[in-house]
Amino acid sequence: MIKFYYHPSPNPAKVALFLEEAGLPYELIPVDTRKGEQHAPVYTAINPNAKTPALVDGDAVVFDSNAILLYLAEKTGKFLPENTPEQRAQMLSWLMFVATGIGPYSGQAVHFKHFAPEPKEYAVNRYDFEAQRHWSLIDAQLAKHPYMLGDRYTLVDMAVWGWARAVPFILGAEAWGKLPQVKRLLDEINARPAAQRAEALKAQHAFKTEMDEEARRVLFPQNARLGAAS
Amino acid sequence: MIKFYYHPSPNPAKVALFLEEAGLPYELIPVDTRKGEQHAPVYTAINPNAKTPALVDGDAVVFDSNAILLYLAEKTGKFLPENTPEQRAQMLSWLMFVATGIGPYSGQAVHFKHFAPEPKEYAVNRYDFEAQRHWSLIDAQLAKHPYMLGDRYTLVDMAVWGWARAVPFILGAEAWGKLPQVKRLLDEINARPAAQRAEALKAQHAFKTEMDEEARRVLFPQNARLGAAS
Repeated sequence: MIKFYYHPSPNPAKVALFLEEAGLPYELIPVDTRKGEQHAPVYTAINPNAKTPALVDGDAVVFDSNAILLYLAEKTGKFLPENTPEQRAQMLSWLMFVATGIGPYSGQAVHFKHFAPEPKEYAVNRYDFEAQRHWSLIDAQLAKHPYMLGDRYTLVDMAVWGWARAVPFILGAEAWGKLPQVKRLLDEINARPAAQRAEALKAQHAFKTEMDEEARRVLFPQNARLGAAS
Repeated sequence: MIKFYYHPSPNPAKVALFLEEAGLPYELIPVDTRKGEQHAPVYTAINPNAKTPALVDGDAVVFDSNAILLYLAEKTGKFLPENTPEQRAQMLSWLMFVATGIGPYSGQAVHFKHFAPEPKEYAVNRYDFEAQRHWSLIDAQLAKHPYMLGDRYTLVDMAVWGWARAVPFILGAEAWGKLPQVKRLLDEINARPAAQRAEALKAQHAFKTEMDEEARRVLFPQNARLGAAS
């Protein structure tokens, strides 16, 4: 059975949604990142990058949420766009846009707004701007048709959903006013039984929620090099 | 014929290398990003993200360098790993590791070290640490076998090569001392005729090289929102 290494955060949520939508049986293995479990050798042997999620499917080992989405879509033949070069090209482009743009810039915006010490005006402005710009491009794409690639619900919508749930935390409480199409897709997917089952996974384990000294040390190891800001 | 939208920077270089390795005929279309040509509507109709590279292949439109590598590898059947679930899983994982880690963190390290104003100690430390950590994981992977996925030269090595050329600019002049395997792969690929043809493309157009006021405005539009640091 598929082993799914999980933490209740945006990237593992995408994979949880796909597994539930596809009806694939899996074993949930919690990785409590605020306790540093992602750095254990037993986990870095699976994902050297020490982040969640990861997936082990027999002899196949996959890490990175977007790699896992594509792996599972190809394995099952589900939630892919129409099998044409045009649609394949757009699927890969938008999946990578989420992977290299939405994820990293949303993550940096969260880090600087919520966790980094002052002074940070330049970095907060940079990442707020870039996160807003990226989400606006998703919104414009969703204004053209119901889903990211057209009329069909695909893995790219699941990739968008993972981080869309965190938009107010990334961009501020008023963010939905400028992103009505993203909100529409989020609400639609949230109402799906598979999304509700994916959301319920976090109750299966008592994950640490405090952002205390230990959590900061294991999540932001770079700060050990700073004199003051650790 | 394939239209290849190009600028002489790390991400388009990966695509140039693949096209040359595969012997695919293509038309080079320069996009001078320091003049702001990436923001022209004729270009954002192809890549809404206003970055290079992009590729138009008949009716297929692909943007993001890593999406293009995968699109071209699947189109040609070339530079893919062995066709097994295990190898496909590792290919997708490491391609995404380059796409979501090596690229974004190297890019942020370059931005803060070379272009951002003071104060920036926290951000420089954060991105130098993360870039170093990501490159060290590539080095460890390359210590296991000649190429990223084993004994075969694949699209993932091309993705690594794109940014590996910039390692001293990202991490500092002494960086190669800690990354001997990355340096080995870089030197080996640099010696390939296809890499030399890819490198020679930059001479086909007089790209703007000055990082002047116009270049900063079109590359870092977020700074217009800052009072002082624009």
